[in-house]
Amino acid sequence: MIKLAGRIWVETENGKLLGHGRIELLERVHACGSLRQAALQMEMSYKRAWDLIGDMNNQFTVPLTISTRGGKGGGNAVVTPKGLAVIAQYRELMQQFEQFLAETKTDISL
Amino acid sequence: MIKLAGRIWVETENGKLLGHGRIELLERVHACGSLRQAALQMEMSYKRAWDLIGDMNNQFTVPLTISTRGGKGGGNAVVTPKGLAVIAQYRELMQQFEQFLAETKTDISL
Repeated sequence: MIKLAGRIWVETENGKLLGHGRIELLERVHACGSLRQAALQMEMSYKRAWDLIGDMNNQFTVPLTISTRGGKGGGNAVVTPKGLAVIAQYRELMQQFEQFLAETKTDISL
Repeated sequence: MIKLAGRIWVETENGKLLGHGRIELLERVHACGSLRQAALQMEMSYKRAWDLIGDMNNQFTVPLTISTRGGKGGGNAVVTPKGLAVIAQYRELMQQFEQFLAETKTDISL
């Protein structure tokens, strides 16, 4: 069976801003309140998660997460209202893309 | 400036069937009549190009290219009518995707 597939992301002139992985990271931080835990769940290094979050927070004028550093377990992190809005807006884009993939007909036959 | 970006591909239950690189390879084979030249132009190994073409020809019931093996320069290759049709059908999908990317509005702001 022939199927159209793909992925989307949001970028600025400074490169990638939001993609599936970054949004999943934000969602997991929101769910568990810890960047370290979120990274673990995604089998991502803490450094990588920290860099991704830092890159997003640098590119947005309002931070998407706020971290309280240090302490056992690496401190806590909360997703800000702006962060929650961005998650919802990205999910909306994903939904439209899924719809595009499902509705787009192809004449390609094997 | 916030911009939606992405890529699409066509897959079957056996994995990827067509993507941007495979279509570019077919187009270059069609333009220069040689798989080796096409691979060179794309800075792709001849083996990789051969494998990609072989995978496509295996998955389609009609081959997309026909090769005359051997000889100096690795022999010639021609894209079949089926191959040309597939290129055109994929380009049509690409065009619809470009349109989707251009038309889809996002509320995300920095």
